[in-house]
Amino acid sequence: MGWLTGFDGWSFYTPQVVLVHLDEEPIWFGRAQDAKAAHITTDIPAENIIGYSEKLIHHATGHPYDELADLLKDRGWSSDRIGVELDAHYYTARAHAHLVEGVPDAKVSDSEQLVNWARLVKSDAELVYMREAGAICTAAMNRAIEKIKPGVAQYEVIAEVYRAQVLGVEGVYGDYTGLCPLIQVGEGTSTPHLTWSDKLIPRETLVMLEMAGARHHYHAPLTRTLYLGSPPSEVTALTRTIIEGVDAALDMARPGTTCEAVEAVWQKVLNQAGYHKDSRVGYSVGLNYPPDWGERTASLRPGDQTVLQSGMCFHFQSGVWLETLGAAVSESFVVTERGGERLCNVCPELIVID
Amino acid sequence: MGWLTGFDGWSFYTPQVVLVHLDEEPIWFGRAQDAKAAHITTDIPAENIIGYSEKLIHHATGHPYDELADLLKDRGWSSDRIGVELDAHYYTARAHAHLVEGVPDAKVSDSEQLVNWARLVKSDAELVYMREAGAICTAAMNRAIEKIKPGVAQYEVIAEVYRAQVLGVEGVYGDYTGLCPLIQVGEGTSTPHLTWSDKLIPRETLVMLEMAGARHHYHAPLTRTLYLGSPPSEVTALTRTIIEGVDAALDMARPGTTCEAVEAVWQKVLNQAGYHKDSRVGYSVGLNYPPDWGERTASLRPGDQTVLQSGMCFHFQSGVWLETLGAAVSESFVVTERGGERLCNVCPELIVID
Repeated sequence: MGWLTGFDGWSFYTPQVVLVHLDEEPIWFGRAQDAKAAHITTDIPAENIIGYSEKLIHHATGHPYDELADLLKDRGWSSDRIGVELDAHYYTARAHAHLVEGVPDAKVSDSEQLVNWARLVKSDAELVYMREAGAICTAAMNRAIEKIKPGVAQYEVIAEVYRAQVLGVEGVYGDYTGLCPLIQVGEGTSTPHLTWSDKLIPRETLVMLEMAGARHHYHAPLTRTLYLGSPPSEVTALTRTIIEGVDAALDMARPGTTCEAVEAVWQKVLNQAGYHKDSRVGYSVGLNYPPDWGERTASLRPGDQTVLQSGMCFHFQSGVWLETLGAAVSESFVVTERGGERLCNVCPELIVID
Repeated sequence: MGWLTGFDGWSFYTPQVVLVHLDEEPIWFGRAQDAKAAHITTDIPAENIIGYSEKLIHHATGHPYDELADLLKDRGWSSDRIGVELDAHYYTARAHAHLVEGVPDAKVSDSEQLVNWARLVKSDAELVYMREAGAICTAAMNRAIEKIKPGVAQYEVIAEVYRAQVLGVEGVYGDYTGLCPLIQVGEGTSTPHLTWSDKLIPRETLVMLEMAGARHHYHAPLTRTLYLGSPPSEVTALTRTIIEGVDAALDMARPGTTCEAVEAVWQKVLNQAGYHKDSRVGYSVGLNYPPDWGERTASLRPGDQTVLQSGMCFHFQSGVWLETLGAAVSESFVVTERGGERLCNVCPELIVID
């Protein structure tokens, strides 16, 4: 909705929709109290901003999509072909059931992330935001690295990260990010999505940080690994291999290459050093809202034959989790003729705090 | 999933499930790389923590729920009655389609927020977290009020709020909240879910702040209204009425009263002063994850005949938005024999910064 119309606001916890018809300006359909946000943040003509009845919020039998079906009938579209984003985070099974019941003659089918795929190549204007997001992320990551010391609680680090993510850099402020900032310490480094606690950072430990900067909801995520104390050779070796793999992959990430070819280069470097990464090593990023900053389209993994074009943006999530520890040095990059251009600028080496 | 099992982690952007069977310990089913988070954060027996294949993430034709269906078949449950949370935020229409196709003999139906309803009355242990959340929210709100001055950018206020939400109070740290902190200034006060920008707070303006504190994901939200300069009598009068309405409603919020009776008392105070609020004035809050901190069950609104019991918690969202301005003084409260007990402790009056 944001990419199509500019609509912005934390209202996605209630049903809301943009209807795109071939012969019509987009129609915003959402909660009545959020219609003003549509007037303020979009150029949609006022008559195409339509609020549904408040009584339908969390109603036992009725649903806002009942009124959406009425709208389709009013416009004479109720027996048309309708594509829906069947797997969008907030497109619930119940919403879909009410739509299909409400316009039984319509041919409703999965548009298979049509809009997400359209977002894959970023315009120059979008790349300005992506680079600003990278600068914000750089500032937030550096603030976290500065803050991490033995005896500091995990949440104290995260508090600084949130502050830095919003303060941004030189008047370029940040938005909330699709995922919260993540810190993993010690045992936690072997699992990627744990959030912070009040445990103190010990004298000797591995720490992984993952966070993004977001500029007008465009995201540049980044991961870094720190070691407090003297890093075991196992960690140093793993980190060195990861950095080597990232460099090789970014060099490969030029227009005309496929997603799977980029992954293959990375996996090859990894395998030569005796490691392996099962999960995909990257995914398209851009304009996103919680709960994710990925676009759910092109992935850097075997079998994905998407051909890279200039302006595509990826998070190269080069984390490798072994049984008891992990390391990750990720980069967000934009595809250019000269290879993947990093959006952030934080030293990729294992950061040793001794 | 968090309430049933303790499972915690920002992994809800990929499909994940807790299966509850009458004759079996709960089964966690999610992305393989998040299985470790289930081992760390829950007491689920290891053999009941089941990861699905990584290749199914954002797959064009396959879906993690295909393997969920296989699991149901393996357990001999594929022709049983299965209740699903059909309208849960992340239960997509596509996930549901794969489930129904995968176990065609099962009788799959909407469990109608069965688990959310079970969460309505908080235990004493949960109330400890709710009160801690209130203390965190109090600190964050006071920090925001302290920060707001003419010439300060909106994002600078929000940066402090995020920091305060995580730092919490005296070693009681905070988690991320279900909604981001919201600031509305001037025209923006007439619409509730706009987020921050880099606009400077002017010398004379109305400001509304809405935020929560979250403790182990239990939420206490709060809204306050500020006026910079000399408040017009219209705003002072509206705010006074709102406070009076909240007081009357909280006095009413005792065990045995209905949700709609609490709303009626509030609406009566409002109407007597010539105002009206269309949308519901409150909703159940508790353990929640983004994108919402509400539980989507009991609402303080006409027609909701849920009978209050000690330990239920609500956010009394007493915002009134007029055409060009609004005011809101909300409270989170727990139902007690003595009426609604406030979870936060911030002066409810219109806060005038002159």
